[in-house]
Amino acid sequence: MKYYEDMVVGTVTHSPRPYKVTREEVIDFASKYDPQPFHLDDEAAAKTFFGKLSASGWHTAAMTMRLMVESWKDQEESASLGSPGVDELRWIKPVYPGDELRVETTLMSKRRMKSRPEMGLTKTQQKVFNQNDELVMTMIGNGLIKVRNPDVMEDD
Amino acid sequence: MKYYEDMVVGTVTHSPRPYKVTREEVIDFASKYDPQPFHLDDEAAAKTFFGKLSASGWHTAAMTMRLMVESWKDQEESASLGSPGVDELRWIKPVYPGDELRVETTLMSKRRMKSRPEMGLTKTQQKVFNQNDELVMTMIGNGLIKVRNPDVMEDD
Repeated sequence: MKYYEDMVVGTVTHSPRPYKVTREEVIDFASKYDPQPFHLDDEAAAKTFFGKLSASGWHTAAMTMRLMVESWKDQEESASLGSPGVDELRWIKPVYPGDELRVETTLMSKRRMKSRPEMGLTKTQQKVFNQNDELVMTMIGNGLIKVRNPDVMEDD
Repeated sequence: MKYYEDMVVGTVTHSPRPYKVTREEVIDFASKYDPQPFHLDDEAAAKTFFGKLSASGWHTAAMTMRLMVESWKDQEESASLGSPGVDELRWIKPVYPGDELRVETTLMSKRRMKSRPEMGLTKTQQKVFNQNDELVMTMIGNGLIKVRNPDVMEDD
């Protein structure tokens, strides 16, 4: 188990295998959660600046989360306690059926919480690339991580 | 069609009907996109600070998007050109199976883009509430909206 104390600022992790985006999944996700014409239908999408059917940005974010969870499992399991939120999410390029996505995560900073000594707060940057190494999405995420030794306040 | 010019800063819109969160959908979404124990399994969730099975934050964001699209359709269709991203996303309270979500959207600001006279940029705040009127998620989103008269630059 990887605790707060084990996390080293500056560490870069990579998703272990690419996420293959299928046309069926793009349409399925959009039908449920983002039923705008450019995420549902080829003909409608062709008339927009996307040019062709593209994934909902929320679908890209969800696939990114999947790749992040796989990154953790590839290494030691981390003592994740969930996330209070995201500071910045940018959809830079459309994601299309057939794309293969990968995620690069950098631990930007970490700090202990005075009010909750059993928890640490981490800030990470995610960069999501497609198969052509084009940046399609970036994100700055906050994470809550279990502290191994809550009685020892080593920083802050 | 509701163009950039028709949008009035300060306007508040409400999702037309609640989104009912089902246990089946929570597990289905988490299995695909966020397979952490507290989103998948009652017993595992009981051991965490969530207390019981809760929805992935990305699932809550996706359900919020659905409610936003329904809000637009309830009124006039808006000339949405997609979104460049989100400035701040906060998961404030867990969302549980059985919850009913609604979204309140406020248009905070809008501006024309000098580089793309056919587009305007809007900033909106979303507040997501459950059936007990507890705030579960907030978000500040950016939207690109089609301009009716690109030749007329009424503000910058």
